[in-house]
Amino acid sequence: MSAAPVWSVDPRSGNPREQVAVEATAEEVDRAVRAAHSVRGALADRTARAAFLRTAAELLEESGPHIIEAADAETALGPARLTGELARTAAQLRDFAEAVEEGAYLDIRIDHEDGSRTPPRPDLRRWKIPLGTVAVYAASNFPLAFSVPGGDTASALAAGCPVVVKAHPGHPATSELCASVLRRAAARTGLPEDVVTLVHGFDAGVGLIRHPLVSAAGFTGSVRGGRALFDAAAARPVPIPFHGELGSLNPVVVTRAAAAGRAGEIGAGLGASMTLGVGQFCTKPGFVLAPVGDAGDRLVKALTETVSSTGSGVMLDHRMRDAFLTGVRERAELPDVEAPVTPGAGSDHTVSAGFLTVPASRLTADGPHDALLEECFGPVTVIARYGSGDEAAAVLARLPGNLTATVQTATEGEDPEAAGLLAALTPLAGRILVNGWPTGVAVAPAQHHGGPYPATTSPTTSVGATAIERWLRPVTYQNTPDALLPPELREANPLGLPRRVG
Amino acid sequence: MSAAPVWSVDPRSGNPREQVAVEATAEEVDRAVRAAHSVRGALADRTARAAFLRTAAELLEESGPHIIEAADAETALGPARLTGELARTAAQLRDFAEAVEEGAYLDIRIDHEDGSRTPPRPDLRRWKIPLGTVAVYAASNFPLAFSVPGGDTASALAAGCPVVVKAHPGHPATSELCASVLRRAAARTGLPEDVVTLVHGFDAGVGLIRHPLVSAAGFTGSVRGGRALFDAAAARPVPIPFHGELGSLNPVVVTRAAAAGRAGEIGAGLGASMTLGVGQFCTKPGFVLAPVGDAGDRLVKALTETVSSTGSGVMLDHRMRDAFLTGVRERAELPDVEAPVTPGAGSDHTVSAGFLTVPASRLTADGPHDALLEECFGPVTVIARYGSGDEAAAVLARLPGNLTATVQTATEGEDPEAAGLLAALTPLAGRILVNGWPTGVAVAPAQHHGGPYPATTSPTTSVGATAIERWLRPVTYQNTPDALLPPELREANPLGLPRRVG
Repeated sequence: MSAAPVWSVDPRSGNPREQVAVEATAEEVDRAVRAAHSVRGALADRTARAAFLRTAAELLEESGPHIIEAADAETALGPARLTGELARTAAQLRDFAEAVEEGAYLDIRIDHEDGSRTPPRPDLRRWKIPLGTVAVYAASNFPLAFSVPGGDTASALAAGCPVVVKAHPGHPATSELCASVLRRAAARTGLPEDVVTLVHGFDAGVGLIRHPLVSAAGFTGSVRGGRALFDAAAARPVPIPFHGELGSLNPVVVTRAAAAGRAGEIGAGLGASMTLGVGQFCTKPGFVLAPVGDAGDRLVKALTETVSSTGSGVMLDHRMRDAFLTGVRERAELPDVEAPVTPGAGSDHTVSAGFLTVPASRLTADGPHDALLEECFGPVTVIARYGSGDEAAAVLARLPGNLTATVQTATEGEDPEAAGLLAALTPLAGRILVNGWPTGVAVAPAQHHGGPYPATTSPTTSVGATAIERWLRPVTYQNTPDALLPPELREANPLGLPRRVG
Repeated sequence: MSAAPVWSVDPRSGNPREQVAVEATAEEVDRAVRAAHSVRGALADRTARAAFLRTAAELLEESGPHIIEAADAETALGPARLTGELARTAAQLRDFAEAVEEGAYLDIRIDHEDGSRTPPRPDLRRWKIPLGTVAVYAASNFPLAFSVPGGDTASALAAGCPVVVKAHPGHPATSELCASVLRRAAARTGLPEDVVTLVHGFDAGVGLIRHPLVSAAGFTGSVRGGRALFDAAAARPVPIPFHGELGSLNPVVVTRAAAAGRAGEIGAGLGASMTLGVGQFCTKPGFVLAPVGDAGDRLVKALTETVSSTGSGVMLDHRMRDAFLTGVRERAELPDVEAPVTPGAGSDHTVSAGFLTVPASRLTADGPHDALLEECFGPVTVIARYGSGDEAAAVLARLPGNLTATVQTATEGEDPEAAGLLAALTPLAGRILVNGWPTGVAVAPAQHHGGPYPATTSPTTSVGATAIERWLRPVTYQNTPDALLPPELREANPLGLPRRVG
């Protein structure tokens, strides 16, 4: 059997651009994992890791034009968006370099010996060490920030874990370019290139999660693909942590007062957010509870105007385009569902944005309308019109887990519904927004990008400083002579790290 | 079908003592979960939770004599040990009360709005909220500290999660008593009693892990039972975190210099540690690498003396006694395995301690001797005699994950093997000891009681302050007006909590 070719494809035409690689065989996956695993010791030095991450950021920026050109050619995301994404990806690498140097993530706790206690307490010194080799499954919709050089890779390397990336088939050329940047950055900082290796192919992805030397995995993608890998991770003889971001509806609730006061602004803002990047954000607001009546009607009207005037766009690939069109068609055919703007297919490989409306009463109990409570990837959202607060609450109680949940409230005077809605939304999501839109995930220490299943498969984040926690495990040293301790735990604190001492 | 009775049994005679309950039917499990889940809101107040935990400690001590009598009657652990365990359990409840009040576990991070960044950063405020209702599977070997009122329950309640405990069949009367203490403590502090509910029975345990309103689980027990529940937790439509402590060999390596200098002391210390509590500690040193030659022989001699002079003991129940005797017999029959002191059955429901020896060369590759690398619950350990450092390293590389790993080094002058062994042991365990014995797990902020699978199913601890982290998930509020924020996140920090602000 000859190796299956991996093609870079132009989504604007559906035509293959170039063959960039071949799919990895089982032996090649094994080689990629062993190569990464065998150099893990080189990542033990925090100073070297920080330098490596900074160099990676620098080389990524140096190769920026080249990478952006390739990424645009195979994702159609456009140079403006990709320029921003590259800057974000570089900034993310630098943020983790800083976190590694600062060392708070080591969560060092020291309890001195205390013979006066019953039972006597020994000397205990706890910190966190890298879990081992990490498998990263790259996302389709962020060819940089959530792919080869993205947050999973950056946080795992920051933790001291070598990384084997499973490239996304939607942007294999970009993946190869970025992997080579990371490997060059390693070499330039005196680390082995194999701290990052890359494989292509569906079977390679399955082989990776089952490999005995893989200690943890990060994933961004669909519920179907993510759940299959989650299941495989759990079924291993030695199960491993699987941190997957699978899918999210990102509900928005518009209070009656908000609709009354800001129907136009909310409709326009929603239209902009749900069509951003051709609706291909994991934080796209995909489900909106808006009141019945005049104010809600005005919101729908404003949304209609914004969405109608949004140009058509090219989705990441034709498979996603087909899934979007099918998903929209199936939902639009449900009883009582209307499409003020029908999302649809352009003649030129594009899709046009649209949205559906449904009475919220259709969603308060199990039924075929539950399809409206599932994410539909692409430029479409669902407006559920509610008659009463109780009806809205009944629908909220039936929603699956989400990355985000948003409430639009009155901005002048007090909104009597705001506090209750915030309390109702908090159990549903990992990030709660008031009077904002969920697309756009700031990279910041306080960020949380994760949420109840299926948003993520574990209560962790893939964005922000705490993303590093996913790739570490605590170890405590008991009554260990100072000379045998890692410098981080020695009594004199020679590295000046933040520690909790008792 | 009539309800299956739950009997308290005297392990000293094998005779039933009294019927204390019946096994919960599927409906009763559902009722117990819904009862706990429905009162979760009452646990939202941190001050009330802290008061509840302190009152629980107090009532536990008040009922101490009664509880200890019941626990001794059904576990044969003896009043002295159980008195200590009760004190530890009460102290643990108070430690978590303190942690709840101090609030560092909330891991609050605040990033202020920063319009100067590209893209502009919104106001982000992150903290951790309770995961939901927690299922706790009680352990056999710690009827208090790892059972109904133990660390899993205490840490889950501290996190703000109601708890449904699945009682261990080995001490159902103690479980009932302790559950009633916790429920009384709740009532006395103005909380609903159902913040803790209790179920009995194997099927109830399976039903619990599958219940849609259970959000996480803690478990201490066997690899077989724990893995079955882990698998069920992962297979749910909505998978949940399963924090299980399953099994651990707790390897000890004795360097040549240590054996030369302290053979007698090490043999005696090992004998005391491995027979403590009739060898029923999860941290029992179950596998020891000791050098061949004269010094190692003296260690074996000292161990022989200590173990021979250890009185026989009653194990927790007859099923465990049978498993111990079978496990020892199977291991002792392997080629080249000797038993300087043969562990065995007393005529009076007791077992006597013993140990096995084997050349380390038998353990450097797959084979039937791998049975010696599996935990055998009860008063037995395995001494593998190594000829060279390489041989010892080859065996270490084949060990499964552990709660602890210990090195015995020279205490006078430098031990040339110490640093290398510490590096080799660290990947194997969650707690590393130098010149100590792993039995006895101090309750302290820097403690870590967990380790690579099968020691635990997740990189978390069930002992110490950080055990609370298992029952929380982060939530970030974006651009949320101060009045709508929980007080913990408000700008003025009205509760004076530790926060990282950027």
